[in-house]
Amino acid sequence: MRELEFDELEALAIGAGVLGTGGGNHPHLELMCAEADYRRGKRVTILDPQELADDARIAVVCIMGAPLVTKERLPEPVAICKAVRLMEAHCGKPFDAIMSIEIGGENAFFALLVAMELGLPVVDADTMGRAFPEAQMASFAIRGLPVAPFAIADVRDNAVLIPEAENATRIERIGRKIVVELGSIAGTCAAPRTGREIKDHAILNSIGRALGIGNAVLAAKRSGTDPVEAVLDVEKGKLLFSGKVHDVSRRTTDGFVRGRAVVSGNGLFEGRQLEIDFQNEFSAAWLDGVRVACVPDLITVLDEESAEAVGTEVLRYGQRVKVVALPADAIMTSPEGLAVVGPRAFGFDFDYQPFTETAP
Amino acid sequence: MRELEFDELEALAIGAGVLGTGGGNHPHLELMCAEADYRRGKRVTILDPQELADDARIAVVCIMGAPLVTKERLPEPVAICKAVRLMEAHCGKPFDAIMSIEIGGENAFFALLVAMELGLPVVDADTMGRAFPEAQMASFAIRGLPVAPFAIADVRDNAVLIPEAENATRIERIGRKIVVELGSIAGTCAAPRTGREIKDHAILNSIGRALGIGNAVLAAKRSGTDPVEAVLDVEKGKLLFSGKVHDVSRRTTDGFVRGRAVVSGNGLFEGRQLEIDFQNEFSAAWLDGVRVACVPDLITVLDEESAEAVGTEVLRYGQRVKVVALPADAIMTSPEGLAVVGPRAFGFDFDYQPFTETAP
Repeated sequence: MRELEFDELEALAIGAGVLGTGGGNHPHLELMCAEADYRRGKRVTILDPQELADDARIAVVCIMGAPLVTKERLPEPVAICKAVRLMEAHCGKPFDAIMSIEIGGENAFFALLVAMELGLPVVDADTMGRAFPEAQMASFAIRGLPVAPFAIADVRDNAVLIPEAENATRIERIGRKIVVELGSIAGTCAAPRTGREIKDHAILNSIGRALGIGNAVLAAKRSGTDPVEAVLDVEKGKLLFSGKVHDVSRRTTDGFVRGRAVVSGNGLFEGRQLEIDFQNEFSAAWLDGVRVACVPDLITVLDEESAEAVGTEVLRYGQRVKVVALPADAIMTSPEGLAVVGPRAFGFDFDYQPFTETAP
Repeated sequence: MRELEFDELEALAIGAGVLGTGGGNHPHLELMCAEADYRRGKRVTILDPQELADDARIAVVCIMGAPLVTKERLPEPVAICKAVRLMEAHCGKPFDAIMSIEIGGENAFFALLVAMELGLPVVDADTMGRAFPEAQMASFAIRGLPVAPFAIADVRDNAVLIPEAENATRIERIGRKIVVELGSIAGTCAAPRTGREIKDHAILNSIGRALGIGNAVLAAKRSGTDPVEAVLDVEKGKLLFSGKVHDVSRRTTDGFVRGRAVVSGNGLFEGRQLEIDFQNEFSAAWLDGVRVACVPDLITVLDEESAEAVGTEVLRYGQRVKVVALPADAIMTSPEGLAVVGPRAFGFDFDYQPFTETAP
């Protein structure tokens, strides 16, 4: 157990942005909120999962919605806090700690904001090791843990509890419909988890991983070296492409932002072209028509100068970017994992190949 | 308090069909289920609302969905019973009686089936005095009673509770999305009501009204007189039209069946034409382009021979029908009522006029 230092907040934001794989870009606003909380004297306590008692109760939280909508109003932990309180009332037991469903993007910070609001520690773990568009794309669902109850609340006076559901996909589909009705953004609290379940089935050290990326980027900037190289070094990733965003088709539908981006090469990639599909997050990339990376591996678009993550909802013509692939957690690339988060779960008609085999 | 006799079940089905105004046609299957329950020794106890203790707790139930879908599987009270049990668990208190949200159509019988399953009496009242397509079109919402919590369950393993909502329309919209996701049919239990609330704000004697219609039709058939005339007599209704269904456009969308029927006149109405709009239920009718009836008054299409109600989902070319208008309850035609169930609430650009002023 340790207190997260003020200076680490920026590193966490950078790392969470990179791990967001487009589905949450650099969480600028959430970082500002967390920094404001720190200035008001609040602090985040990070808990190593191994410190959790087996019977500790952990609230697994996130903001659910279309990324673009999360940019339309200032981040507020209140909706998630309401969902957490609703879950406590439903179960008749309080929570001991908070954990984010996903370390990628804004949700890394929402866990912090909620924890500070409720005075609880944050567990250094998540269920995705990145960001994914759908709630069932999570290690707990992959490992077959019960997915209900599930609580949803908005910032107005609406709240919904799903006490039982036939499977994780049904929770996602019911939940998504509710979230769309609530304006395509709501706070959620997933099925309560025990300390034992976290230790056995969560993706561990997620905050540590994000901090590692962020610290590497900040160190590279201080020393004048290439921050994108720093990310690749610390993550054992690969550069997929370098170029200028040439075309983006994007539609917000059914609570998701979906589309395709085309990047025209420069430097080493002069005359070549990269196409990237996305559903909230980047899902697959083709170099001159040949697939070079796909889910569950992380495909991230970074600003070529700052290595700042570029979200799928702000991607636009003319941005100069580097596209990188980073490794997925072993739970995600297991056969059970690929059934839930592999290319076919995203509607593609091909099987997973690690980017380490296919990247240029 | 009295036991509903076996022979009354058929009369109730006929009357509920007529009061369904197209949104639930003659509840054949539900009648068969109730009769089967009676043969197994179960009985329905009807409770006069005035017998309710002020602090009695009443479960207000219905099947929510598109009428056509309710014809695709045999009626089962199990989904509603699950919703009732969920509500009891949420509130921590058992229910003393069951009441249907609407007397029109199948939901009159679902309240009976649920009551027999749970061993509770049925209150002789409802919230609509007919059938309406949307959950907020109810006397309790019109009178401003709190509309949450609201429970939804299906026959599989899915259940949803809405513990709070900003208003009744939001409950309808969230609930409808959930119901669509569950296959456009689910059982619901609305906010628990006290005996006092029922006595003050429900539409009373609904079962009695349906039985009155059904008994009049059965008596007319036995005596060889016109059963449609019998309905008009007992209900102080008016004949709007007589003719042959000429055209029906119908689409099931967003959990509703919507459309328009055109009827070509015969007899007194030879050479004339009636157009009727519907959203689950018939909502407005025009005779040769002139409006002759509209919500909240009841517009019902009856088979010209049997006076059996013809539902909007089974209306088809060639049916010989009589179209009648019956009076709405005073709660519905009050200014507060018209704001919720008047023509403008159905998207029309005109104000309510009683059919007694406009019918031919």
